[in-house]
Amino acid sequence: MNILFTCAGRRNYLIAYFRHALEGAGRLVAADCSDQATALREADEAVILPRVDAPGYIDELLALCAEKQIALLVPLNDHELPLLAREQARFAALGTRVLVSSLEVIELAADKLATARFAEQIGLLAPKTYHTLEAALTALDCHEIQFPLIIKPRWGSASLGVERVEDRETLVLAWRWSQHRFPALGLRQDAVDGSGLIIQSALPGQEYGLDVVNDLSGRYRATFVKRKLSMRAGETERAITESHPVLEAVGERLAQALGHIGNLDCDLFYDGQRVYLLELNPRFGGGYPFSAEAGADVPAALIAWAQGREPASRWCELRAGVSVAKCDRLVEMVQINRQAEVVSLPGAAEAVVLPSVSGASH
Amino acid sequence: MNILFTCAGRRNYLIAYFRHALEGAGRLVAADCSDQATALREADEAVILPRVDAPGYIDELLALCAEKQIALLVPLNDHELPLLAREQARFAALGTRVLVSSLEVIELAADKLATARFAEQIGLLAPKTYHTLEAALTALDCHEIQFPLIIKPRWGSASLGVERVEDRETLVLAWRWSQHRFPALGLRQDAVDGSGLIIQSALPGQEYGLDVVNDLSGRYRATFVKRKLSMRAGETERAITESHPVLEAVGERLAQALGHIGNLDCDLFYDGQRVYLLELNPRFGGGYPFSAEAGADVPAALIAWAQGREPASRWCELRAGVSVAKCDRLVEMVQINRQAEVVSLPGAAEAVVLPSVSGASH
Repeated sequence: MNILFTCAGRRNYLIAYFRHALEGAGRLVAADCSDQATALREADEAVILPRVDAPGYIDELLALCAEKQIALLVPLNDHELPLLAREQARFAALGTRVLVSSLEVIELAADKLATARFAEQIGLLAPKTYHTLEAALTALDCHEIQFPLIIKPRWGSASLGVERVEDRETLVLAWRWSQHRFPALGLRQDAVDGSGLIIQSALPGQEYGLDVVNDLSGRYRATFVKRKLSMRAGETERAITESHPVLEAVGERLAQALGHIGNLDCDLFYDGQRVYLLELNPRFGGGYPFSAEAGADVPAALIAWAQGREPASRWCELRAGVSVAKCDRLVEMVQINRQAEVVSLPGAAEAVVLPSVSGASH
Repeated sequence: MNILFTCAGRRNYLIAYFRHALEGAGRLVAADCSDQATALREADEAVILPRVDAPGYIDELLALCAEKQIALLVPLNDHELPLLAREQARFAALGTRVLVSSLEVIELAADKLATARFAEQIGLLAPKTYHTLEAALTALDCHEIQFPLIIKPRWGSASLGVERVEDRETLVLAWRWSQHRFPALGLRQDAVDGSGLIIQSALPGQEYGLDVVNDLSGRYRATFVKRKLSMRAGETERAITESHPVLEAVGERLAQALGHIGNLDCDLFYDGQRVYLLELNPRFGGGYPFSAEAGADVPAALIAWAQGREPASRWCELRAGVSVAKCDRLVEMVQINRQAEVVSLPGAAEAVVLPSVSGASH
């Protein structure tokens, strides 16, 4: 079966994990809007697509799936998830299964205010969340919350525009500064009218990342728990796997309430007694390689489910205590103009297919 | 000859380049204050040292150099450069050559206000730089500068605390916010009294990164020019090498004015006519791998010079048009408590030597 990764970016490791799981029984295609995306060099074929927000995006993607006989499409960018959730049926008609959850799950996860409400509905804690400065100041006066507080975009990603404040004067200043800066962050428009920022209480305890895996019918299968050791550029940089029955049970509760499809990346805090849900990402996240390096094999499970069979049980056997860190790998980007083979897709303005090269790496 | 890397952090690629250049004729030792530094797993031996700002840092480092018979010490963190520049003679007495420039060069490079003045002294342009809000507002009134402007720490690093502003109201707000936030950035204390922030004009044209290489006597040898294609977490993420006589000549001018030792990482802008110097880092920077992947071999040259011989000329033969990008590599961190061999160094409280492992990588 052929597999397509969209907005492949720098997820080289994910394509490598799928290659291992596929055992040669299919081709891996990576697409991105930039010819400088490193993951383009990890796949068997690389395709340049328009930006996700371009008018013809879905049509070009459909044409590509037909052309390449794609059985499974793995989207990797938050902005394309709602589009793909809406158009799933058109892909299914071509024989392409899209690894995407329902629109309801996607919108809930994208909205940190809705995420906090959802957490409370299913009996978890969440940061106290306010979407005006006045509401936060009143809550401070009533001792409902205390410093430190976090200001962040309501529909944010990658830690863009997140500020931590320690006192009232800095809170007021940072709120005003965040409002000014907002348009430059390039996030959803909702924010420009002033409703796009929230103030949250900082959470106590230790931060964890979970991979919560459902099958293609949305049935719960596994939770992988990783204690975060450090962050960089909004992504987990170092983590250690843990066997953690409390958090594994939380993963199961989330999975059953959401019924999401495939991998759900989840950030939460645990203070030894209480679990606070911070964030949900209904896709493979930057924390997945920490599960994979400890033995998880979600790609093998997804491939099996897409083929209507059960994966070997070892796909979810995670070794605890595996400590992994990210560092840099260098990938040489062969220039398109020199080596490109231009392929004309039905309905596509242009798609450039690059030869796969094994990038220099250290 | 044995080589030690201090504050090795995530510079796995640099250790790999030195390994290649050393051709087995010596051991590579990596030190860091954190047992989670990925580069510890790239070396033949890993040593945990105190933090650079701990009282016994230099004494422990001297003891380590004696113990391991280190011929060349390659420091990788800005904060240890002044310490090592001051204490070079004590290392030399042990037979350890420290790859560090004079204190004068280090202080000039650390201070963005001094860097701008230096640029003008040697006939380059620099951003207009102000160290009070009032001075910048006056300069705006006189049309000496115009928006956009950049607010940043005067002694900053890794793009910490850098804000771009587009209008007067946002400038005033961002200046106040930056003053409030300053202590949380963990930078030099100079700033806390209010003198640690500067306002600079944004530069026109294209940003470039240079590696300017002097030998161990401070004599100019080569300049490698890379056009920056994207940045992430304050480091170059993608770049392409260029043959660029104008910028190569700028590298030579900088090298002759500074007389630095070894590699100098340099950021500048070029608008097709004028060259603006933005920043100097007198050490291997995050842009070096883009030179190395295009054929540069500064480690081979440094090893040769340290041995009193000339390197083969191919060390500075850079191929132009080589486009390289960074992506993530995963390194498994074997736990210290499980596998550590504790080595007692003379004068050292404790140093932990780890076995080297070949980390999982994709």
